[in-house]
Amino acid sequence: MMKHTPSDPQFEPKVRKSFQNQPMMKTFEATLTKVEPGGVEIVLPYRSQLTQQHGFLHAGAVATCLDNACGYAALSLAPSGKEVLTVEYKVNFLSPAKGTQLIARGHVTKAGKNLSVCHANAYINNNNQEKLVATMLATIIAVDKHKY
Amino acid sequence: MMKHTPSDPQFEPKVRKSFQNQPMMKTFEATLTKVEPGGVEIVLPYRSQLTQQHGFLHAGAVATCLDNACGYAALSLAPSGKEVLTVEYKVNFLSPAKGTQLIARGHVTKAGKNLSVCHANAYINNNNQEKLVATMLATIIAVDKHKY
Amino acid sequence: MMKHTPSDPQFEPKVRKSFQNQPMMKTFEATLTKVEPGGVEIVLPYRSQLTQQHGFLHAGAVATCLDNACGYAALSLAPSGKEVLTVEYKVNFLSPAKGTQLIARGHVTKAGKNLSVCHANAYINNNNQEKLVATMLATIIAVDKHKY
Amino acid sequence: MMKHTPSDPQFEPKVRKSFQNQPMMKTFEATLTKVEPGGVEIVLPYRSQLTQQHGFLHAGAVATCLDNACGYAALSLAPSGKEVLTVEYKVNFLSPAKGTQLIARGHVTKAGKNLSVCHANAYINNNNQEKLVATMLATIIAVDKHKY
Repeated sequence: MMKHTPSDPQFEPKVRKSFQNQPMMKTFEATLTKVEPGGVEIVLPYRSQLTQQHGFLHAGAVATCLDNACGYAALSLAPSGKEVLTVEYKVNFLSPAKGTQLIARGHVTKAGKNLSVCHANAYINNNNQEKLVATMLATIIAVDKHKY
Repeated sequence: MMKHTPSDPQFEPKVRKSFQNQPMMKTFEATLTKVEPGGVEIVLPYRSQLTQQHGFLHAGAVATCLDNACGYAALSLAPSGKEVLTVEYKVNFLSPAKGTQLIARGHVTKAGKNLSVCHANAYINNNNQEKLVATMLATIIAVDKHKY
Repeated sequence: MMKHTPSDPQFEPKVRKSFQNQPMMKTFEATLTKVEPGGVEIVLPYRSQLTQQHGFLHAGAVATCLDNACGYAALSLAPSGKEVLTVEYKVNFLSPAKGTQLIARGHVTKAGKNLSVCHANAYINNNNQEKLVATMLATIIAVDKHKY
Repeated sequence: MMKHTPSDPQFEPKVRKSFQNQPMMKTFEATLTKVEPGGVEIVLPYRSQLTQQHGFLHAGAVATCLDNACGYAALSLAPSGKEVLTVEYKVNFLSPAKGTQLIARGHVTKAGKNLSVCHANAYINNNNQEKLVATMLATIIAVDKHKY
């Protein structure tokens, strides 16, 4: 994984503040467990409210965490005064997500002036063993704050 | 849009039952408003719990509804005794999703024996005007019930 | 399909000129058969040089035509002095592409100031019957000419 | 990168034979430079016939090599008597592909009984320095030989 240098020295509090301002993450009871330059980790505890018809975490819950992992990885490298939006993503679901917690790790593959490309993987944790359950490839755009 | 003939005459109750068995849809307070052969519609009322940091519906909430719209469109054409899983999808976000409700419409583009390809669009409704906010292209697989 | 108004009245010669300047299209012997505001059509005659190991048109040949159909659909709506580049695309292959010619039709789903989202479908033509063989969802960016 | 055990001891000649049977790869003058269990490398020399309007390798040429890198990575792990087809892929283009040769490396992320998920990266080589120019995430299906 590539080493990145953040242009905003306040990248960690910036990312953490934005994450805390997402009501969706509170609804999910997800937490931001790591913030590094170009990479973040989000943990989602298994909750039956977020499942599909077979008792596994809903693909939508998995994708939401992966999407945020990509977005916040990109935000960690964005200049001060910028925000990020997801342009698009593609996600493959590899295995059913049943376990005590989901761990989504995102990192920046290519940091561009406006557009960044990020990868993220989601792992389900069972008895301290991690299993890859989904993988994402996303395009994130940096925009001026309060632009819309 | 193509006309499809469902192989399972009980396609509508089958789809409705599966939808009702998704706790995630209850958590979202989403409803299944239309079920036709090869196409479904899901409506998600705007709720602040499902927003991101700017007060718009979170991309994850939009994608979850689109994913379900694709999956249930595929299920409507699947033979009796089959279930569907999302293999993968790609979604583009076109505009911020702020309005009174989100309407996700999915349809089957190619119905295969095992793999189906589906498109879905999400519209935000404001003052009875619909605006396209996201579009998805998904691969859905039909598997034997209780296979896992 | 949406009606679009081109901002550049010279959109058709502009698109045709760019297409003619692609050596790849000459190598493929593909032709640009329609240029409308927000939509283009490209025809690729079947040639054994462009096939995979079973004698069908290679997925790469199909995707190349779809990608160009998306890009030129976006270029048709771009302001004068702009060029377009493909940010990313996703393509599903639905059926083997064996027939006398491939027809790729692309159109703009959302025309943005910088980023446009386009859909394209590829059909194989056999005995004057068209069959859908692939579908694409793409993100295209408009950049200043000679920017790089 | 994960270690994979091939189920077919003849995986290398099988992959090489299939590659040689692709007229498209001959047209491109691409070569298969590495075949390992779950991973392959394809090299495409820069040729003006495969360029777009600015003299860079056409996105379609890059994607074709990435697609093949994914497909042959999956084939290397497939049981004897199986062939592979690309279900779908998504590719992001990160930088213009101008250089003496393109190197596409694909590997299997999840090997399934029928469906495999693969990642691939394309690098452009200039003065013995590699630069990442595109990244792909693909779904590959294994089917019985001569099934169609």
